[in-house]
Amino acid sequence: MKPLEWADGKVKFLDQTKLPLEELFCETADASFLAEAIKRLAIRGAPLIGIAAAYGIALAGLSAPSSTEEEIRRHLLSTIEMLASTRPTAVNLFWALKRQRRIIDEWHNGSVAELQKKLIDEAIKIHQEDAEMCERISSFGSELLNKNSSVLTHCNAGALATGGRGTAVGVITKAWELGKIKHVYIDETRPLLQGARLTAWEIKKAGIPATLIIDSTAAVLLKQKKVDAIIVGSDRIAMNGDAANKIGTYSLAVQAGYHRIPFYVAAPISTIDAGINSGKDIPIEERDAKEVAELFGRRFAPERMDVYSPAFDVTPNELITAIITDQGVLKPPFIESLKKLKLQN
Amino acid sequence: MKPLEWADGKVKFLDQTKLPLEELFCETADASFLAEAIKRLAIRGAPLIGIAAAYGIALAGLSAPSSTEEEIRRHLLSTIEMLASTRPTAVNLFWALKRQRRIIDEWHNGSVAELQKKLIDEAIKIHQEDAEMCERISSFGSELLNKNSSVLTHCNAGALATGGRGTAVGVITKAWELGKIKHVYIDETRPLLQGARLTAWEIKKAGIPATLIIDSTAAVLLKQKKVDAIIVGSDRIAMNGDAANKIGTYSLAVQAGYHRIPFYVAAPISTIDAGINSGKDIPIEERDAKEVAELFGRRFAPERMDVYSPAFDVTPNELITAIITDQGVLKPPFIESLKKLKLQN
Repeated sequence: MKPLEWADGKVKFLDQTKLPLEELFCETADASFLAEAIKRLAIRGAPLIGIAAAYGIALAGLSAPSSTEEEIRRHLLSTIEMLASTRPTAVNLFWALKRQRRIIDEWHNGSVAELQKKLIDEAIKIHQEDAEMCERISSFGSELLNKNSSVLTHCNAGALATGGRGTAVGVITKAWELGKIKHVYIDETRPLLQGARLTAWEIKKAGIPATLIIDSTAAVLLKQKKVDAIIVGSDRIAMNGDAANKIGTYSLAVQAGYHRIPFYVAAPISTIDAGINSGKDIPIEERDAKEVAELFGRRFAPERMDVYSPAFDVTPNELITAIITDQGVLKPPFIESLKKLKLQN
Repeated sequence: MKPLEWADGKVKFLDQTKLPLEELFCETADASFLAEAIKRLAIRGAPLIGIAAAYGIALAGLSAPSSTEEEIRRHLLSTIEMLASTRPTAVNLFWALKRQRRIIDEWHNGSVAELQKKLIDEAIKIHQEDAEMCERISSFGSELLNKNSSVLTHCNAGALATGGRGTAVGVITKAWELGKIKHVYIDETRPLLQGARLTAWEIKKAGIPATLIIDSTAAVLLKQKKVDAIIVGSDRIAMNGDAANKIGTYSLAVQAGYHRIPFYVAAPISTIDAGINSGKDIPIEERDAKEVAELFGRRFAPERMDVYSPAFDVTPNELITAIITDQGVLKPPFIESLKKLKLQN
């Protein structure tokens, strides 16, 4: 399942806002249509947003006006600006656009065809690199699981969020292919229900036996010894191993510790923030009260009710059994194992 | 706030299905209208259902045909049958109907006016007893809280579920009146959102500063040291102190233990099941998948997705700091303190 593809001068993508009830694919040769799709979350997941933006610049190259080098350059740079303004927080977006910017800056011979090819090639390369990163994480991670494992995951760190098979969900589908997975339990992941909507759809599509639960039921399953491991993704990892991820992850990690079940974080090296020493310094975005008090536009909490809705929480390193990266599996003490990595940022 | 009242030969009740957006009161002199209201959850909460049923028999007494003793008796017994069939699991329902049945059985002098008065008096007595039970629990419970306490509760164990100020929520409103409450955090309580819909409404109505959270955020608040105590109700307590309550309670109790925060269960003596030695023997109802996969009739999980949805979970006694009953506060070891109670069943 590919949520986004380059198809003969066009970008074909799955409109994720329609999932899981409808699988609607869109095709466009227009970078601004792609920007709009990122804005309205039809394309989502930090790595996938970066890939989409890179393809957006490739599209802009193809639609460049046949005029002066100056004008072509202006057209491309304004497209970069437009794409950069879609989602302010996804680091991968800026990083991917920077790579395309370098191609544009290095273009001096005046051949538009050559520039077009280079922009397409770079976007495909970014996409491929992400897919390979997912493969490495998935392979390393699946080695941690025993045969006949039942695993639990939270939110969506799957193919829908990346250019490959995903991180946490990638580990699960890889382990399934290796005959190691018995059952997958999926947290619905309130408030935005990415587990119920996206991960459930991916896991079901992969043909893996799976059960959806409300987030509160996870503790009950652990008590019943129905779960052998918990695997989640991460949005940012500090240099001591503290990991930020979707709200509900910290709660799960505490449950895993109490019930003595391994708790794995799967994330690419790019998630590790060399500038941050501990989870305390990771900024946590607070979301709108409406996401908790309403669903599908229908309000169910009292009017003017105060709501606290952090989008993420931080799991302290001592609750993490291992961090699965594309450079291998890190074991505690993470403050040591993280130092040995080749970091990009 | 009274969700149900006897009003001059009629029963006036709040239609809880309209909460929190609308406060719709209904009035009826018809026992079958009341039965319908119980069935469609307009009247809910085990104690309140029992009270409503008792009033239903009082209404049936007033509308009895002016004919033979035999026919009056038949009319009343068929009303008992109708009310008993509304909700099969609420123990209080059968207990309240049994009390009215005794009045009917003991009636032999033929005075309809006297029978009518006795049925009304018994219903009012059942209602009053429940209100007093709530008061005692609330007083005992509020003594456990220090000044300036921030507390967290789950689901709805409030005035809307009882004939008085509630159990867990009763403790909170009582402590608020005593100047001991700084803030209340309310778990939304997936899947049926009783926290967001009912407890939030009650606490807001009482004028207590409160914040609504998704269930996963509770762990984050405990980590931030924003919560001084957790107070929940219970649906059934075993003789070793294991307590069944709404799904999500066990998860909270584990969090409370990890973060070293007191975890209180507030429930009347009638909740203690002398026939059950441990939580393992408490039957746990499984609910329909739709309650998890849909909301307001709109589906958001994939079609035919397997769902596991227990309505309750069991918190083991070792995670409970104290059980607040109408006969006083029980401390561990509960296997000892429970034995000393005067149980009714």
